[in-house]
Parts: sequence; structure tokens; C-alpha cells
Amino acid sequence: MSGSTFGNHLKITTWGESHGAALGVVIDGFPAGMELSESDIQKYLDRRKPGTSSVTTPRKEDDKVEILSGVFEGKTTGTPISLLVRNTSQKSGDYSQIASYYRPGHADYGFDAKYGFRDYRGGGRSSGRETIGRVAAGALCAKLLGQMGITLTAYTKSIGPVSIDPNRFDASVIKENPVCMPDSDAAAKAFDYIQECRNELDSVGGVIECRIEGVPAGIGEPVFDKLDASMAKALMSIGAVKAVEVGDGVMVSTYKGSEDNDGFTYKDGKITTTTNHSGGIMGGISSGSDIILRCHVKPTPSISKEQSTVKQDGSPIDIVIGGRHDPVVVPRAVVVVECMAAVTLLDAMISNMSARASYITAFYNNRI
Amino acid sequence: MSGSTFGNHLKITTWGESHGAALGVVIDGFPAGMELSESDIQKYLDRRKPGTSSVTTPRKEDDKVEILSGVFEGKTTGTPISLLVRNTSQKSGDYSQIASYYRPGHADYGFDAKYGFRDYRGGGRSSGRETIGRVAAGALCAKLLGQMGITLTAYTKSIGPVSIDPNRFDASVIKENPVCMPDSDAAAKAFDYIQECRNELDSVGGVIECRIEGVPAGIGEPVFDKLDASMAKALMSIGAVKAVEVGDGVMVSTYKGSEDNDGFTYKDGKITTTTNHSGGIMGGISSGSDIILRCHVKPTPSISKEQSTVKQDGSPIDIVIGGRHDPVVVPRAVVVVECMAAVTLLDAMISNMSARASYITAFYNNRI
Amino acid sequence: MSGSTFGNHLKITTWGESHGAALGVVIDGFPAGMELSESDIQKYLDRRKPGTSSVTTPRKEDDKVEILSGVFEGKTTGTPISLLVRNTSQKSGDYSQIASYYRPGHADYGFDAKYGFRDYRGGGRSSGRETIGRVAAGALCAKLLGQMGITLTAYTKSIGPVSIDPNRFDASVIKENPVCMPDSDAAAKAFDYIQECRNELDSVGGVIECRIEGVPAGIGEPVFDKLDASMAKALMSIGAVKAVEVGDGVMVSTYKGSEDNDGFTYKDGKITTTTNHSGGIMGGISSGSDIILRCHVKPTPSISKEQSTVKQDGSPIDIVIGGRHDPVVVPRAVVVVECMAAVTLLDAMISNMSARASYITAFYNNRI
Amino acid sequence: MSGSTFGNHLKITTWGESHGAALGVVIDGFPAGMELSESDIQKYLDRRKPGTSSVTTPRKEDDKVEILSGVFEGKTTGTPISLLVRNTSQKSGDYSQIASYYRPGHADYGFDAKYGFRDYRGGGRSSGRETIGRVAAGALCAKLLGQMGITLTAYTKSIGPVSIDPNRFDASVIKENPVCMPDSDAAAKAFDYIQECRNELDSVGGVIECRIEGVPAGIGEPVFDKLDASMAKALMSIGAVKAVEVGDGVMVSTYKGSEDNDGFTYKDGKITTTTNHSGGIMGGISSGSDIILRCHVKPTPSISKEQSTVKQDGSPIDIVIGGRHDPVVVPRAVVVVECMAAVTLLDAMISNMSARASYITAFYNNRI
Repeated sequence: MSGSTFGNHLKITTWGESHGAALGVVIDGFPAGMELSESDIQKYLDRRKPGTSSVTTPRKEDDKVEILSGVFEGKTTGTPISLLVRNTSQKSGDYSQIASYYRPGHADYGFDAKYGFRDYRGGGRSSGRETIGRVAAGALCAKLLGQMGITLTAYTKSIGPVSIDPNRFDASVIKENPVCMPDSDAAAKAFDYIQECRNELDSVGGVIECRIEGVPAGIGEPVFDKLDASMAKALMSIGAVKAVEVGDGVMVSTYKGSEDNDGFTYKDGKITTTTNHSGGIMGGISSGSDIILRCHVKPTPSISKEQSTVKQDGSPIDIVIGGRHDPVVVPRAVVVVECMAAVTLLDAMISNMSARASYITAFYNNRI
Repeated sequence: MSGSTFGNHLKITTWGESHGAALGVVIDGFPAGMELSESDIQKYLDRRKPGTSSVTTPRKEDDKVEILSGVFEGKTTGTPISLLVRNTSQKSGDYSQIASYYRPGHADYGFDAKYGFRDYRGGGRSSGRETIGRVAAGALCAKLLGQMGITLTAYTKSIGPVSIDPNRFDASVIKENPVCMPDSDAAAKAFDYIQECRNELDSVGGVIECRIEGVPAGIGEPVFDKLDASMAKALMSIGAVKAVEVGDGVMVSTYKGSEDNDGFTYKDGKITTTTNHSGGIMGGISSGSDIILRCHVKPTPSISKEQSTVKQDGSPIDIVIGGRHDPVVVPRAVVVVECMAAVTLLDAMISNMSARASYITAFYNNRI
Repeated sequence: MSGSTFGNHLKITTWGESHGAALGVVIDGFPAGMELSESDIQKYLDRRKPGTSSVTTPRKEDDKVEILSGVFEGKTTGTPISLLVRNTSQKSGDYSQIASYYRPGHADYGFDAKYGFRDYRGGGRSSGRETIGRVAAGALCAKLLGQMGITLTAYTKSIGPVSIDPNRFDASVIKENPVCMPDSDAAAKAFDYIQECRNELDSVGGVIECRIEGVPAGIGEPVFDKLDASMAKALMSIGAVKAVEVGDGVMVSTYKGSEDNDGFTYKDGKITTTTNHSGGIMGGISSGSDIILRCHVKPTPSISKEQSTVKQDGSPIDIVIGGRHDPVVVPRAVVVVECMAAVTLLDAMISNMSARASYITAFYNNRI
Repeated sequence: MSGSTFGNHLKITTWGESHGAALGVVIDGFPAGMELSESDIQKYLDRRKPGTSSVTTPRKEDDKVEILSGVFEGKTTGTPISLLVRNTSQKSGDYSQIASYYRPGHADYGFDAKYGFRDYRGGGRSSGRETIGRVAAGALCAKLLGQMGITLTAYTKSIGPVSIDPNRFDASVIKENPVCMPDSDAAAKAFDYIQECRNELDSVGGVIECRIEGVPAGIGEPVFDKLDASMAKALMSIGAVKAVEVGDGVMVSTYKGSEDNDGFTYKDGKITTTTNHSGGIMGGISSGSDIILRCHVKPTPSISKEQSTVKQDGSPIDIVIGGRHDPVVVPRAVVVVECMAAVTLLDAMISNMSARASYITAFYNNRI
């Protein structure tokens, strides 16, 4: 089967492996007429690049994007947009020993069980490098959403035991610290914690939150393509994510109805909710309040501590994974979460355009 | 758009509203030759029916299923299976006042914002009755999975603050208590807690867990139709679910890599994991270990306490929701979770049949 | 796999067999707010019913449609519309002998080869009765298209050697004669020809043409969901259709470019074509000129002449097919063609609403 | 909407414009383990390249394919296969004047009507160069089909009035003459006819036939993804195709049932048909007989004769289309037809693997 395409109207198809010739994405169904240059995409890709800080891999990845199709005279044409990033820094030699055994916490065994063999270089298709295509596609969607007054802001909410203080929330510092936290103090502590774990030859997990402001009410398609269901798929499909929450998420199972229910009120000329436990989505449809999503990200499975596992033939082996690894994937995954949310939302908004017969007849009478 | 179809190869399309003439599902792509009778389906539907206990709605819902197509001489034919459940007990009069305002915690406002008007009777399409189609479809899938040695067991893990004791886990009591817990003591306490909340005119949430045993390694389609991503969509699409976890779920964000990684070992002639923090899915592909899924379910939004909200025109109103409501939806949602997991898994297993060129050539050389 | 769903945004899923309990369709993604009653659908279903004339089967089929969901207070709600037609007149006894052999020209062998066994009663799922769902769905689409000034007119162009005279074309007589021809003289001759063939215990084929007026330019999604490609699939999926033409169709292979090319001109305030060899579709996108489609329909394979074939075990058998058969399927298929074209066009028009970034931003700024 | 993806299980997504940086295709869902090198693909691409003969464009197109992903150690990995062909010979200057008017017979007006503007260089996305991706994808599918004993043979059946003589059919000469006919005499006459038309500054159409041998019975998914319906979509989506026939195609409308019906017989240990009017597909499912498909291709719309049309503002203009054009597209489209048929068939064969419950259980019991 073909699992590398996401979306119903706006479809993105990512391709590429960690150590192949290149990675990329084809975005099909993106509307015509939006101004687009490589720099619009590059600035998102740069956010997922390993930085110069010691909490990311020392691998150098240039990740320069090339637009191969779908843009003419600086504007999208409505035809498929093909984006390419060449792999330049990958050294296959680093990974050759991995071929013979299954790394704990990795997809190695699953790939072998499924396909009969695997591209073992850097995890092949299961590498985090696969997200390059997602980010490139999300950059386009975020730009168009921005033109409709919709903004997405993802950030690190916690790293291991270090959480941000909601009272110190400052969106302006998210891109200013190596862990992408909206709280400088917490960021400093998280940085120290990561260093500590790395010194123990270990890795660490964390939580990423994404807030989307300006979404009109009415977005989402019951009953299977509800906005929260599509978002859950989008976010859970990111490697290392093991839980997805919407609004108050796991807390709601401990609430009473009177605590959880968001009542409605009328403010500034429109209906809105007085609280937002539901995270902007009720019954799978946006309510007009901010959309709040959270992903729980596991620690990087590649660690330098010795671990026990088996070879392909089942015989035991103790391994130490060499190579250059991020001690934490959370900061680099922040932009991936933001981009997947953007793709999902724009797709749902396109879908909603045909929700009413009156919309369609008005569209074809007026062409807006 | 059309959001009422789920699945890639095996597609289920549910239809019907709370107070319409009927509800149902069309299952397309279900393989030919499986024995199927209405009783196979009815026993699953009966599990989601309100019981006689005081923790479920006193509404009487017969929910008798009729097979309208796709079965001949007691076996599935490979053509679409259409299943119908007539609505018999619904009284629209109960709901007429709802038409004028937006209930807190409900999809009312979203539906109006999207479609311009709504079937306000009992929540219309956003009613829990929509899950009848899901359960009916899941019953078929669970039967076929069972013939391959795969079993799904969903149960209530907690109700409000009352959790099961893992040491007292007893699957045999799940269907024996009104809250569907695998721990009779916890079940009794949960029952009391629900009663207490109901007496306070309030409602309560909880957690549902689903364990799937016997799944072969290799199931799931990277990178967007990963098994966990598809499960997340399936479960988050169930009304009232606000968070989905796989394996250790939200806990992984606090782990170190050395704590989280599942190493491999060789046991009973096959490769397996020594621990199962990953919940049987690594890199989006099944590992052969038990699959563990969890949903966090919010309290029933319909409560008898007075609440503040607005009418369609934005004017404020204080409401008390009458009618017959479940004080908790968790126990009745247990079978829905199990059934959605069954549909998702069977669809993924069908998909996996073409993962290798050698599978396809062997298939057409031998027809198995 | 699941082949009973058609459409990308507006999805129709038909179900049901010739002699099952019922047949029907679920229409998902149909926009909210269109007035709809059972009579809107019934009048289309009545067009496909066998008439009282001697050129159709003497079977009595009431085919009364029931709307089970998706309509509230006389208007579509945007949720799935489930339509049901009970089978009432089917006598399974008529067909029992068919179980043992493969009828020439029928799908019997294919079904057995695929599924391992088949519902042999009246052809099961391969029966013409399957088109009930298509017609019911098409009725809705045609109504909404009509509200946008788009009209579809299908008719019989020829029966065996008897063709209509284009100079005598009169759309008003199509529904007035038993062969659905827009030319009364040709209709009378075709009627006689069918009688003659029936007296020879034989059957006859013909050509159905469909003209769609009022389609705006710009509809169709290159490169695989081109309007002509989607129409070709829609029409070729109708049982007995063996060729599909657009515009001048098969003639174009004999043309020179200077004969085939449709030039553009400016008339009545809009750009249009001076000729219409292309049948209103160029490069897979509507040009604003009338869309012209043609299907070539084979003779009814069930004939009363003796034929040679084999049993399931390969042993030869000479058969005479009893039962009540149409000597020609063309007249009853006319409305099926019209309805499939309506579904395909409306789906493509919905798709086109997001073709431009400016459409989407205008939509969400104004909500039209 | 997103119309550049084809297929249900095996999905191909083509991208690229005539004069963009590159063209290509992503093939998702192609099974793992098939040996694949660039030469496997290049030999198909070379068949669609303009030759050195005077009946094709003098444009030089190298069209060298590069495999960017999905192949490791010479074998497909089961992950998306991304194929790239750089544009090297395109000179945009040739086309700049086209920007201002709508060429007769071209998609120019449709693209403008749809997207608001267009990439006018060489037709942009509507160029025949778009088929590069189709051919590259088809090459892979044809290879795997070949390993199952299935062969596809497409050829030119007629050019204008010059048809092949069925009695002189010789498959071995198809690739030996510039018009791809399986009859050297007809090929010579067709060649002369094309020259004649070109001297008249005109172009010419023709018919392409494709025969598929070795297809097992049972392939195709009723009722909308019937094998003939999918093939019709696949072939009609090729630019310039205006009609698609299966088996006897347009002739069946003139047949009587007794002439058209293919009876069954038992030969060489299997059930087969005595005749093949149905072209190997009955009721949308393969019968095991050869599959016969035919496309009617219009003349190249770009001709050097003067033609009348309009500019974007509706004002009239007389034009002579310069540049380097094929006087006939038929010979170069032969391989495109063959490749689209291969993609469609392999996709349908994968789909059929889950047709029976017994297949699935056997698969997971044995893994074949």
C-alpha cells in the first residue's frame, strides 16, 4: 500500500530516505496564484536543521530546497509543486554495522518484517530526515493560512521534567533558544538537563504544544475526518510521537461535566466560548476558539549506552550505537508539528468550502 | 466534503442521525467467504446498548440489526455489506427547545457554523448513536481477525479518580459489571462515584484501554498511514475522546532513552521485545508485541445542572438540559473503541499483503 | 478492495444485489440546505423502471425510494444521505439453475474466479438493478446542478442499425417513447427492430448520448482527474458499456488538425468555441461549450436462443436462458448515463472551488 | 483539488511542466524486493523520445532518468520511488507569444479559466512531456507484471485513413518503424501520409491498440473500479485521447446478443472463452482472455496553418503556430498507453489479493 500521501483535497506526498540521493515532497492541489519563492520554504527548513548548540547532532545538513515545478513567474500555478532537497552530508559508512541487528526502540525490525529487507543507512525511510518533505509542504500552507489571518505557533512545553511556566510564556523567545521554549528560564534549565543526560550517554523526551489562532468556526468533517481526528493522525504519524492531546486532553478523563463544558458567550460581535477546555474543537468541528494540540515525544532511541538486542537470525548481541545523534528530538520536531498542523488545517478548510449548497451556487454565480 | 468513510482498502461508511428513520453502515471491500449472520453483529451492538443499571440512560434502544446486502447463503460475497438499524424509541419532542441555543460542550454551534442549520434532535449526526455503524462494522472485522488468532480486548481503565488495580486485572469480569472494568473492586467504586456525580446533577469522564494480542510484525504503512497514526485517527474520531496514547503514551516525554527503548530478544522461535513501552508499534509498524491503545474520554456534556450559554442570535440564556442522558459515556464507548481498532487493524493487514514483490508473484502463481 | 464508492469530494457508495433484501446508496459530502423530498428522487427512478411496452421486461419493479438520513425539515443537512429501495418482486427460483454454469457475456465466471462463489440470483451484484443507487444519487446532483443553470439531457442515439436523424432532433419526445429517442420516427423504427430481434429470441445494442449545457469553463482536474477521464470511468463502469466517446470521439482519429481544432471567438460577452469537435472538454478541462458524451452499449447478454458454455467444473452444457429479460438495455440505461454524468460533474465543480488562492481567501473573508 | 495522483493501492503522482526545471513521478506502494535500475526505466522513456525520423519533432530531448529514492542495493525497498528527469532542451523564448492568445484545440483557455493564469511555455502542465512520469512509472509495473507472465503490447492501429492489415500483424516490427505499427507495409503508407499532411502544414490523428496477455481471471473491482472503468479513466486521461474502446468497442452497439456473447469452453486445463468480443473483461472483471483496449487520438492541435482565435481579452487574432511540433502524436503515445495500462492492471491485481477471506487467512498463516 501507499502510505506516503496525506490529505484529501490538498495532498502531500513525501519521499526519500536518510542516506538516499535526495528527499522531497510533491504538493498536489495547492491553489494557484500565491506568491512563492524558495526562501519562503527555506526559512522553515532552517528551523528543523541541527543548530550549532551542543544539544543537536554535529552533522552538517545544508538542506537547500529547490522548486522543480508548479511555480511560474513567482506564483503557484495550481499544478503539482515538486520540492527537492539533496542529501549531501550523509556518510553511509557510519551505519553499515546496523545492517546486522535490530536497534532497540527503532523501526528496524518492523521494516524487515514488512519488506523483507531494509535500507539500514541512518534508518532509511524511518529517519527523521523524512520530515523535510513535511516541513517544506507545511511552509506553503502556513503562508496561505497567514494570508487569511491564521497563525500557528508550536513550541516545546517540556523536556523531561522541565516544563515551561505558563505565567512566563513569551512567544518571541521560541526561536531564540536552542530548545524552542517560550520561557527563557525553563529553556536554560532544559538545556542543562539535556547536557546532563547526554553526559550519561542517554537521551530525553518532551512535549510539544501547538496553538492555532484565527481559525473560523465550522472546520472539520464529521464523523471520521473530524478536525481533531485528522490532527491526531497528522501528529501521531511524526516519528517518536506516542500520544496526542487536544485541549485539556488527558485531564478530561478526571473532570466532571460541569468542569469540562465550555459555555458560549457573545463578544466583539461574534459567538465564542467562555473557557477553552475543548481546545477549539467540539464534536470534531472548530468552535472559533484557539486550537490547542499537544504531542508527547519519546527520547531519541539512538543512545551511546550499551544495550542488548538481537541480530536478524535472533542471536543476542550487545551494542553501542555510534554515529552522530541528537540527544533530544523535541526542539527540531517543533516545526514539524507546526507544519503538519498547517497542512491538516488548510486541507480541512478547503473541504469546508462545499459544506452548503448556497456556497456552491454563490461561487458559480459570482466566482467570488 | 465527505467525512463519513474510514479505511483505505476496507472502507466503512456510516450514516444516520440520532432521531432519523434509521442508522447504518456500508462495509465495502470486506473479503468474500466469511460466515456471517445477524447474531454475529447483534452481540456487539448489545454491548453498546444502555443497560438496566442506573449509570446508563433509561432510554430503551432495541437496535436490532438487519443485513441488507453482501451476504448470500450465510457467507459474505465480497460485495458491499449494508447494515441497518431502525430508530424506534426516539422522541423528538424531548429536544425541541435545544433548537434555539448552543449546548456547552456540544457540537451544536460547530454544526450551525458549518452547515447553516442543524438537525437538533438529540444532537443529530453528532449523537453517540452514530457509533452504531462503527460497532456493526467492527463486529465483522473482529470476527475475521479472530480467525487469524488476533483478539481485541477493550475495557474501562478509570472513571474519574477511580482506576483499576493492574494486579487485580481479570478480563473475564469486563462484561460482568456495568462499567466494563477488568477489576470488580474498582468497578464497584466507580459505580458509586458515578452515582454520586449523577446526584450532583453532574457527569464524569474516564479512560478506555484496548489491548490487541496476536498481531504479526510488519503491519502499518509509513509514513502517514503508520499503524499508530491510523489508530489515533480512528479513536480520536469517536465523540468525547480528547487524547490518544500508544503504549506508555504521555509518560514517554518524561523518560530517558535507556528507560524507554524496547530491546529485542528471541523466544519461542521468534523475535520479540523484552519490554513493551512502545505498545507494540515502533516507527509506525507493529513489532509483534501486544498493541496497547488508550483513549481519554470527557464527561458527558449533557448535564442537569444549570449552565450559561447563548442562543443562535448571541443573546444569553441559562439552561438546564432535560431528557435522558448517560452520566458517563465511557462504559458504552468501550465496544466502540474495540471495534474501531478492529477495523483499522484489518485494513492495515490487507494493505500489508502487497508489501513485497515476492508476495504478489507467489499469490498469482499459487492463488494460495 | 472497495470498488463501490465513486467520487472525490462528493462520494456515492452503492450497495445491493438483484435479489437481496434491498438496494441503495449513501451519498456523502452532499452540501447542506438543498430542498429534497422522495419525489425528487422517485421521478428519476421511475425513468429506469421497466415500462409497460413490450420492449422491456415484464417484471414489475416498484422501486419506491425511502430517505433514511441526511434530510431534516425538508432540506439536506450536509451529513450522509442514505437512500433505500426494497426488493419486492424478485423470485429467486427463476435463477437457481444458473448457479451451475457460466452464462455467455455475463460476469458469472469473473465473480467466481474472484470471490470463490457468487450470488447467482439474477446476476447478484452485477445485475442492472445495481444502478438504482446510481440513479438515486444522480437525481440529487442533477437538482443542484439545475439550480446553477446546468441541464443534462441523455437519450438513445441508435438501436442496432436505427439512428436518430439529427435534423429531426426533438428533446421533448425523449420521455414520450419507449426507446427514449429524440426523434419519433426513428423511435418507431427502433421499436420495430427490437420486436423483430426479440422474435428471433435475440437482443440488441445501441448508443446513448448525453449533452450537458451550461457548464462553466475551468472544470476538471489535470492530469488524472480530467473531466473527460472521470466521465469515461463513470460511464464505462455502467454494465454493458464497451466504449466511451467525448465530442467527435472515434472520428478524431481520421481528422486532420485543421478539421479537428476548435477555434475561439467572443460572443455574448464571453469567450466560446466556434465549433465543438472536442465536446466541450479540452485538455481535460471544460471549455464552456456543451459537453457531449457517448456510450456504446452491448446487447443484453441474456437471450432465449440456445447457447454453448461450460459448468463450473469445465464440462460443456447447452443452455437456454429463461426468465424475464429486456431485449435491449439501452432505453433503461439512458437515465443511468445522465445520472452518472451529473454525479461526476458536480464532484468536479466542487473540486474546482479551491483552484485559486484568491477563491479561498475570498471565501473565508466573506463566507460568500 | 489534487488530480495528479492515479491508483488506489499503488499510487503514482506525476509532476512537472514542459519548460520547468524538471519532470517526474513518485510511485508509492510499489512492492519491495524487485530488482530495479535506471536502465529498466530508460528503455521505456527512450520509446517516447522523438526519433530521428521526419515524422517527429526535431527537438532534442535527452530525458535521462535519475532514481532519487526507494531503491537500495539494486532493489525496490517498498518506500516511495521518486524518479526525476531534468528539462534540458527547452527554450522558453519559442513560446512567449502564446501567452497572449488561446490556441485552438489546446487547454490554454481552460487553464486560464480555472487557475486565473497559466504557464504558457510549451503548454505547461498540459504538455505531452507530462507523460514522462507516466512512462517511468509504467516501466516498473510492466517489469513486475512480466515476472508474473503478463505482457503488454501497444501499437499503432491506424494513422488517419491508413490501417494495419490484421493478416499481416507482426509484433516484432512495432519498434522497428517510426510509426510503431505491427505491419511494415501499412507503416510505410502511414509514414507517407504523415509527410503529406505535414507538407500541407497540417497534422493527423490515429488509433492505438493495447493487448495484454496472461492476465488471470478475477481482476477488477465492481462496481466503480471495474477493470474496464479504471482502464477507461487511465487512457482518457492521456492528452489527445477522445475515445476509449474495450474489445469490440463501438461495434457492439450494432450487434445482436447472439453475435456479441462470448461463450465459455474448457481448454488446456482451464476455462476460457471461445470468442473475445468482450476484450477480456466481462462485468468489469477479467475473464482470463486477452485484454484488448483501443484509444482514438486526435491530430496534434499545434499546426502551422493559419487559424483564427481570440486573445485573453476576447479580441480576434489570426495565428500561425511556430516552434517544433510533432505532426502526429500517435507513435510517441504508444508507450504511454502501454504504461498506463500496466499501472492500472498492477493496481487492480494488488487489490484482488484481499478478495477472499481465505486468501487473507492463508497469507497470514503462511506468509506465502
